[in-house]
Amino acid sequence: MAHPRVTIVGATGAVGKVALTVLEERAFPMESLRLTASPRSVGRTVTFKGEELTVEATTPAVFAESDIAFISANDDISRDMALAAKERGCVVIDDSGVWRMDPEVPLVVPEINADDVDAHNGILAIPNCSTTPLVMALDALRQASPIRRVIAATYQSVTGTGSAALAELEEQSRDYFAGNEARTDQYPHPIAFNLLPHVGSFRDGGHTSEEMKMLNETRKILHEPGLPVSATCVRVPVRVCHSEAVNIEFERPISPGEARELLANYPGIVVVDDPATNAYPMPLDGEGKDEVFVGRIREDVALPNGLALWLVSDNLRKGAATNAVQIAEEVVARGLWRYGAAKPAVEATA
Amino acid sequence: MAHPRVTIVGATGAVGKVALTVLEERAFPMESLRLTASPRSVGRTVTFKGEELTVEATTPAVFAESDIAFISANDDISRDMALAAKERGCVVIDDSGVWRMDPEVPLVVPEINADDVDAHNGILAIPNCSTTPLVMALDALRQASPIRRVIAATYQSVTGTGSAALAELEEQSRDYFAGNEARTDQYPHPIAFNLLPHVGSFRDGGHTSEEMKMLNETRKILHEPGLPVSATCVRVPVRVCHSEAVNIEFERPISPGEARELLANYPGIVVVDDPATNAYPMPLDGEGKDEVFVGRIREDVALPNGLALWLVSDNLRKGAATNAVQIAEEVVARGLWRYGAAKPAVEATA
Repeated sequence: MAHPRVTIVGATGAVGKVALTVLEERAFPMESLRLTASPRSVGRTVTFKGEELTVEATTPAVFAESDIAFISANDDISRDMALAAKERGCVVIDDSGVWRMDPEVPLVVPEINADDVDAHNGILAIPNCSTTPLVMALDALRQASPIRRVIAATYQSVTGTGSAALAELEEQSRDYFAGNEARTDQYPHPIAFNLLPHVGSFRDGGHTSEEMKMLNETRKILHEPGLPVSATCVRVPVRVCHSEAVNIEFERPISPGEARELLANYPGIVVVDDPATNAYPMPLDGEGKDEVFVGRIREDVALPNGLALWLVSDNLRKGAATNAVQIAEEVVARGLWRYGAAKPAVEATA
Repeated sequence: MAHPRVTIVGATGAVGKVALTVLEERAFPMESLRLTASPRSVGRTVTFKGEELTVEATTPAVFAESDIAFISANDDISRDMALAAKERGCVVIDDSGVWRMDPEVPLVVPEINADDVDAHNGILAIPNCSTTPLVMALDALRQASPIRRVIAATYQSVTGTGSAALAELEEQSRDYFAGNEARTDQYPHPIAFNLLPHVGSFRDGGHTSEEMKMLNETRKILHEPGLPVSATCVRVPVRVCHSEAVNIEFERPISPGEARELLANYPGIVVVDDPATNAYPMPLDGEGKDEVFVGRIREDVALPNGLALWLVSDNLRKGAATNAVQIAEEVVARGLWRYGAAKPAVEATA
């Protein structure tokens, strides 16, 4: 086979659906495409390039006939199915938080550390959707000076949680206008017209898992194991796109103009920064786009050699599906998808 | 007269309406109460303590018969009418950004700098609604150690702009569900299901007026003219309450436990910080309350001797009307409302 057989696990979820779109947009070369999901979605049909595909159950057997699997499901599925796939010689590109910090698993944003793909051992991970846009901006700016510290406050959309959370935001908003009490299921409190300083689960010291991801994943991707990154992660009543207010201290001064140029020249980043015309990144503008949008670039009055900026990125696109497909492209380009000894035997039976 | 004659300028606006409620709740002693507003509201009646009051035009003549005026209007009205009132011996407590940084005008949060009231020369100012909760938290914490730097990202509700902005958020939300295009008037872009990293107007260096207010007002209120305060101010689709993610660096280490105790013991602050029960401050809970709510108190991994926290405050209450009435209480308690030589003569004609 010249091209890999691809499976999307979680194909009916918020990220899975966008992965289908991205595979088609980028004309990702595939021998075949299979879709799996949780039991309640099995049997549904999904159209891809005009062809109807039927959603299957997620079983280890599927991976015996797959070369690359995108997994975008819950942590339990990722934990079990990534291993099942790997054992069957199928390369996994995983969207969960389960594998990212595993020393054997490359955590990749191709613009930054594509070469880390080479070391894969069957599983690769994409970063958390609030980490990816941040590390891209940091990688662009550290060309001018090493970074001393990073402080970020996030404004994260409900699709970061999933499709059901989007439905919940919309239902609660409608209920507000109808005078009905908000019903909560996806979040412990209403999200419509509200803010939850709570993304992920609480950990020791009062940090959330999301805040620790932003610290640990940033360090791993940038290969800067001691970089201080302090994040406050907040869920906001926005449908799609995560936004972040970021303050960065550098070792040497870097002017807003210099920063603007470095960011504008960085692949996958678009600078939107013209106060005179009220131009700055906004979630409504970022939705459906692959780029990370950066604006409000200015001197930070509280950090020596500091810059403050604002960024917006579609959490389903560059924050998830697009980055996953980009990693797959790297895996294919480097010929690293027939990695296991088991694969030829499996192929022989296919 | 034992009690002052009070006028509310902008009585039909978002802050003016709450000022009426707060005056009643706190049983502020008044000889009389007059309400003024812009021409389109003149003639409307407003009920106060069961009595119907008719809204008048805002004219200098009203101040000749008033001892204390709360002004909550636009900057132009504040600029003209504060002077007109002062000339007529009426003490002004102003809510706009016009007077706050005037060296002759005390900028007061009574919990912090009530004594600054003594120096008033006819005009006193309340801080910007995103400054007040921040300086209260900082004042509580600097008891343990001097503060080196402050970084804040705000999540500001639409009532910070006014009643019309609240109507716009609600109309745009309804239009979204009806499939209609969002109509914009109060903001340059839609606010429903969106974020605008743009509060106030843009200034030199790409900062907004709101961000500069948070820097300059904090310094003035805390009497710390060199304190570095870096803010990113963002409008969010929330009806009432401003929230802030705050990172603070101290000269000496201060533990989250110590911070929690200092904050809990501070007048007007309530600590809501129990991750185990998903308890943290949220706008929906803060609406209609006078207190500043602080939670998510934890070590800051990026700032030496640092703390990170999250706060929520009703921008119409402590952020505006409640603070204004508290200042008036200080003015009355200190006998500083018959301050001008002109007043007795005016009173003689009343």
